Amino acid sequence: MTTASLLCERLGIAQPLLSAPMAGVAGGRLAAAVSRGGGLGLIGGGYADPQWLRAQFALAADATVGVGFINWRLDELPHVLDIALAARPRAVLLSFGDIAPYVDAVHDAGAILIAQVQSVRQARAACAAGADVIIAQGAEAGGHAGLRGTLALVPAVVDAVAPLPVVAAGGIGDARGIAAAFMLGACGVMLGTRFYGSREALATPAAQQALLTASGDETVRGAVFDRLRGWTWPAGYSLRTLANDMTARWPDQATGLSAELPAQRADFERALGQGDTRIAPVIVGEAADLIHDLPSAQDLVGRLMAEARELLASAPNVAG
Amino acid sequence: MTTASLLCERLGIAQPLLSAPMAGVAGGRLAAAVSRGGGLGLIGGGYADPQWLRAQFALAADATVGVGFINWRLDELPHVLDIALAARPRAVLLSFGDIAPYVDAVHDAGAILIAQVQSVRQARAACAAGADVIIAQGAEAGGHAGLRGTLALVPAVVDAVAPLPVVAAGGIGDARGIAAAFMLGACGVMLGTRFYGSREALATPAAQQALLTASGDETVRGAVFDRLRGWTWPAGYSLRTLANDMTARWPDQATGLSAELPAQRADFERALGQGDTRIAPVIVGEAADLIHDLPSAQDLVGRLMAEARELLASAPNVAG
Repeated sequence: MTTASLLCERLGIAQPLLSAPMAGVAGGRLAAAVSRGGGLGLIGGGYADPQWLRAQFALAADATVGVGFINWRLDELPHVLDIALAARPRAVLLSFGDIAPYVDAVHDAGAILIAQVQSVRQARAACAAGADVIIAQGAEAGGHAGLRGTLALVPAVVDAVAPLPVVAAGGIGDARGIAAAFMLGACGVMLGTRFYGSREALATPAAQQALLTASGDETVRGAVFDRLRGWTWPAGYSLRTLANDMTARWPDQATGLSAELPAQRADFERALGQGDTRIAPVIVGEAADLIHDLPSAQDLVGRLMAEARELLASAPNVAG
Repeated sequence: MTTASLLCERLGIAQPLLSAPMAGVAGGRLAAAVSRGGGLGLIGGGYADPQWLRAQFALAADATVGVGFINWRLDELPHVLDIALAARPRAVLLSFGDIAPYVDAVHDAGAILIAQVQSVRQARAACAAGADVIIAQGAEAGGHAGLRGTLALVPAVVDAVAPLPVVAAGGIGDARGIAAAFMLGACGVMLGTRFYGSREALATPAAQQALLTASGDETVRGAVFDRLRGWTWPAGYSLRTLANDMTARWPDQATGLSAELPAQRADFERALGQGDTRIAPVIVGEAADLIHDLPSAQDLVGRLMAEARELLASAPNVAG
């Protein structure tokens, strides 16, 4: 049995491909479409809003999906995990924190615990705490991520947690990235930005158009959008988005924003409502160069995996 | 003809593998060993010291090697390129600047111009300026690098400069990374950290031992060592090293170091002489987790490529 089949068996899926639980963007429709396509779709539970979560599980209808949470935020609202588990998710993904308090509850509900990590040290800790699957997320990812790049992180995590299955994430936008991830020893892949550019994503039309014309060169990392939304993230993480007026004005830690917060928040809320991408964030990663269409997420799963299989089957002769 | 064969033909090598021109670490012996192993070894011309360069070309003896320079430094000492070209290098690699002023001289000397880039934008510029080969270097690399990660950068650069051959660099430490690079569309690979951990590298025994036990998690990026050495780098680049007492004391831009520079420089020079890795930099990248031995560089080339070919030939069945 290949490691990819092992992951598929563990998650009850046909294709070793997951869609990332992008907070607010990966709703029930997207997660369901990915699962219907043969992968595992994850609802973006993010900051643990119970009302949004219930609505999205309802939209997933009869599809078997999973859900992801920002671990440190779940620590503040642990009862939201029970709401998620009541919807019988196939898997719960936790990232950016300590999974230990949640392992038993997830397992008792019959779900798989997926720990997303950003370093080898975190991978060892998640393995010791009882994770069933590890996602090694590189810094190329859109949204929040850590410091290490995917290419060197994945094989290091594979070695550190063997024989636990490791899924690669961060910067994978097409079949080339998927095939590369398998060569690195991953047994599956998780894609975010690629699904941000899909019909079922809860991204505004303007944000999706911005993605289609963007290069990963034009992404930046910083704290301005976290500060506008009032979230205080632990050290070591920052948010990758397309550069826009806001990231230009308040780069990095967004020092100096405090004094202007009330006025800026009002403008920000207005821009979110209007889909004004000069102010509202387009939360995509370095894979942006590789996204050229907005297909259905359900079709994408099969298409990407078929192309990746073709690449792997016709691997080049590299001389010698 | 595969793209790997195209690169091999263009560079006159049997294996599509280059060793990075690590300034001060990739001397003539290392470059010659890599070339004798079937790849192309590059002398680390770095900041363009004529005396060091002549000595290293002499040590390479009859082996056909290449040489690499920090482009913005060569702009200050352009005559050093003539010294290098007089030694008949197979290729000249330029990184961190505009290659245009050097294209004709390199071609007139019968050498291949390899442009190392850190973004898609730079790749297009280097292609337009007349580069023969592009190296897409990800931020995982040891030493100086840009902002983008290897996994998403390589396919984006491949698409941007096709049909120019693209070599992947940054975070590749073993056969898994090499195989992954070919899946991303690269026609070859360049490795630095892996060769830092080889017998022929001009790294101190203490620095090599530090590499063997280090994780990529323990690398950091900053300006402290550039400032101690008196180099002012353009914006957008920083130096990745293992974290040590110096990076802890002066993180990032090393603000506050100015007042203490004379005293710190004296300590720094002493530490360099003594190989004290608490103060002297160990200039390696995120591939550190993957390095477990200190073999001969000549043997490494064949071993790594044989392992990569094996991985590519037995690519997993990834379901569907």
